[in-house]
Amino acid sequence: MNHSLGELAVRFGCELRGDPAQRLSHVATLAGGGDGTLGFIASPHYRAQLAVTRVSAVVLAAAELQHCRVNALVHANPHATFARMAALLHPAARAVPGVAATAVIAPDARVPASAHIAPGAVIGAGAELGERCVIGAGAVVGASVRIGADSELRAHTTLEAGTVLGERVLIHAGAVIGADGFGFARDAGQWVKVPQVGVVRIGSDVEIGANTTIDRGAIDDTVIGDGVKIDNQVQIGHNCVIGDHTVISAFCGLSGSTRIGRRCMLGGGVGFVGHQTIGDDVAFTGDCLITGDIDRPGVWSGALPAQPQREWQRLVARFKRLDRLALQVRRLAKQLGEDSEHD
Amino acid sequence: MNHSLGELAVRFGCELRGDPAQRLSHVATLAGGGDGTLGFIASPHYRAQLAVTRVSAVVLAAAELQHCRVNALVHANPHATFARMAALLHPAARAVPGVAATAVIAPDARVPASAHIAPGAVIGAGAELGERCVIGAGAVVGASVRIGADSELRAHTTLEAGTVLGERVLIHAGAVIGADGFGFARDAGQWVKVPQVGVVRIGSDVEIGANTTIDRGAIDDTVIGDGVKIDNQVQIGHNCVIGDHTVISAFCGLSGSTRIGRRCMLGGGVGFVGHQTIGDDVAFTGDCLITGDIDRPGVWSGALPAQPQREWQRLVARFKRLDRLALQVRRLAKQLGEDSEHD
Amino acid sequence: MNHSLGELAVRFGCELRGDPAQRLSHVATLAGGGDGTLGFIASPHYRAQLAVTRVSAVVLAAAELQHCRVNALVHANPHATFARMAALLHPAARAVPGVAATAVIAPDARVPASAHIAPGAVIGAGAELGERCVIGAGAVVGASVRIGADSELRAHTTLEAGTVLGERVLIHAGAVIGADGFGFARDAGQWVKVPQVGVVRIGSDVEIGANTTIDRGAIDDTVIGDGVKIDNQVQIGHNCVIGDHTVISAFCGLSGSTRIGRRCMLGGGVGFVGHQTIGDDVAFTGDCLITGDIDRPGVWSGALPAQPQREWQRLVARFKRLDRLALQVRRLAKQLGEDSEHD
Repeated sequence: MNHSLGELAVRFGCELRGDPAQRLSHVATLAGGGDGTLGFIASPHYRAQLAVTRVSAVVLAAAELQHCRVNALVHANPHATFARMAALLHPAARAVPGVAATAVIAPDARVPASAHIAPGAVIGAGAELGERCVIGAGAVVGASVRIGADSELRAHTTLEAGTVLGERVLIHAGAVIGADGFGFARDAGQWVKVPQVGVVRIGSDVEIGANTTIDRGAIDDTVIGDGVKIDNQVQIGHNCVIGDHTVISAFCGLSGSTRIGRRCMLGGGVGFVGHQTIGDDVAFTGDCLITGDIDRPGVWSGALPAQPQREWQRLVARFKRLDRLALQVRRLAKQLGEDSEHD
Repeated sequence: MNHSLGELAVRFGCELRGDPAQRLSHVATLAGGGDGTLGFIASPHYRAQLAVTRVSAVVLAAAELQHCRVNALVHANPHATFARMAALLHPAARAVPGVAATAVIAPDARVPASAHIAPGAVIGAGAELGERCVIGAGAVVGASVRIGADSELRAHTTLEAGTVLGERVLIHAGAVIGADGFGFARDAGQWVKVPQVGVVRIGSDVEIGANTTIDRGAIDDTVIGDGVKIDNQVQIGHNCVIGDHTVISAFCGLSGSTRIGRRCMLGGGVGFVGHQTIGDDVAFTGDCLITGDIDRPGVWSGALPAQPQREWQRLVARFKRLDRLALQVRRLAKQLGEDSEHD
Repeated sequence: MNHSLGELAVRFGCELRGDPAQRLSHVATLAGGGDGTLGFIASPHYRAQLAVTRVSAVVLAAAELQHCRVNALVHANPHATFARMAALLHPAARAVPGVAATAVIAPDARVPASAHIAPGAVIGAGAELGERCVIGAGAVVGASVRIGADSELRAHTTLEAGTVLGERVLIHAGAVIGADGFGFARDAGQWVKVPQVGVVRIGSDVEIGANTTIDRGAIDDTVIGDGVKIDNQVQIGHNCVIGDHTVISAFCGLSGSTRIGRRCMLGGGVGFVGHQTIGDDVAFTGDCLITGDIDRPGVWSGALPAQPQREWQRLVARFKRLDRLALQVRRLAKQLGEDSEHD
């Protein structure tokens, strides 16, 4: 696609500084761009690149305008505006409606003529697909699954029986939605499987990353709200409930019955021990473990940064003797007549 | 399915308090249930719900009976008993024997007439399937694989060549059993692949979660004992040996040649550095890293709980200066005439 | 395969001590071997096994020769030499050239006659496969993908559109290469998808583990160098760049735009917060989190080893009060007239 700067400014509500006739054909980084490319700057961190970039135009906030020497599209939210322009310049290839010869569709499944069913896909009994759905190569849609309009499953995704998807959901390759939750009852040193009879219900405008797994509920359902964005290789246990517009990064692990509020942000590798309730607008930095409820907005952390090994080993040795150190300090304090309230 | 309370009491050896004619059709949570539903309570934690629940009957231990205002099925192990009743009320859909038209089966594979082979499944040369096996859509069974009776592979599972499965094994979608172990020998700054010639041998009554990976042995085999339950997204390296009835939660990572005993319990994200031996009946809470052998039963932990970010940053800064703090305390102790044995 | 010791010694440049006519048919561990087997010892740690082993020959370094009582092949790098001999004794089954009946190949894809395309594989429009490529059962090769000669995709791998692979690349089952990076711009409490228009470019002699995910670049490409070895269940975010011959163990998570140098070694579960640059020859032990750039070779660590739970709980309690402890020590020091420079 190819658009003029003037057209982009009007369509996306930007103030334009520069040549409205300049044509733009694709996006680029400030460092790598050339003629006909559109870049953006969303952080002063990259200001040095702004001074030397060869892109034809930059989307930026008013504060950066003075540092920009090429055409500029000024917007209060340059990142989101750039994202929308990029979608215009790089439209996703539209899948052609139709059913591949090697796809297998149950006789009573409802597949609209506008849907694209790729080779090897399998659509189970009673499944209902919305208009313009795209079912990728080898994707498996279980019995009674319902998928809203304009949703897309990439290759090798699995939706187990009963899964419900809203509209405009995008699920990346290898994700498994609706496998049995990890539920077993101990009995004389062995484990009895607890049947997992709930399903997974996913809202609209959700994106789910490659090889992510979301388990069906044990009794009630596992629920993913609208606008939730989930990265690759996330694990969401049975009966979790995720609030609207929450973002979950790779390797997060939500044990059973974790409830996360709206607009939360989970960095990579964040773990929840299960049966916890987290309120709205809580953020977690990478690799932390959450062991209790959190009812107020805020940022939580819990990872120690790596150190050169020798230094780290010394710290670990000190850490292991922390109890003894504290007791020694208490003794010294007592000797010096300081009361122990601070300990 | 629909059963009377009296029938359930007799079949599962419960003491019944209430109306034996009450019909039950499905399970429910104490909070969500209604007429015709069966709930359970396995922890006093939910006692408040017991007082107000609308389920028709509750499975519980004798100690909870006094708090229950609806029909009760009393059993010493209410969770396991509930699990068995749930399996009766919600029987899994039985797969119809037969081979789908788009499945591909090697001429010399042994597939009994009682097996169900779903669309797109591939059964390799010399594979042997037990009676009533279910091979899910697109599942790939490699050459010479042996699968015991009543085992089930969900969609997109991969059993690489030579894998051996016992009876009643359930493997969830996307799991990969028998990929090459991660074995390379360094040679002049590059890596030479060490052929991985062992296989994976899995016992009976094992469940393996979605997108979990279990690597084949380098020389000897990787072995998973009977009754082992493995959650989603677990990684088990080459030559690991897992004892019977051990439970492994999501994101656990067992480096090569880790040996875990029987009836162990691994919380989420537990890591083993490899070449370790863990005895029977050892438990690990979430996110801990095991660096040595453990020969006695017990519980091990190793994760720091997340804190509000500002507080955490202060703790990290203190932690990094722990060595200096300890040295300072030693100096102070010396000044005060305390010997250093406690340091 | 069956080879004489003399033949192996000549072919792999070893000094032979023992019977050159001894036949060897397969590899074994020192503990498990028998007649006709070849073992190796790469660490003095296993010297005790060397004294009692029943293998027919052992590959070892000169320093171990005196401890060996069976035939010996002496080489300065016994592990790499054993690896090469094992590949000779256990040659991988060669896939027969040809296209399975249920494979689906786009009319304009280039598939050489020497390639093996397994059942259910899907080759997209404009894809180009090198000589002797092996495309496993159900593997999905997206549009315009290019794969170098002698590369192999195992079952259920997904290469999204535009992915580029070098020669002799091996990708294990379930890996997803080229899914969209996790890129969203916040806008009024919701998330706007940032189109991911880069691709993934992978060098030659790369191995990628089962269920690993490598995301396409947001604007520029994600790049994996030559000879890189990646374990199962690794996540590599958009625009990461991995230097040649670097090794990455299971569960490592590289957030977007992480740059790793050449010959680095990442233990299991190592995390990078993103936008970092790591130089050549840096090693990271398991489970550590890297929060800054590293420009010199060395080993970094960051995980606390698990402890018996009771002990751990005491340490955690002490850790949480570390700030107060340090302040108390400062007060005591002041009382004793020590200046605070050490704090």
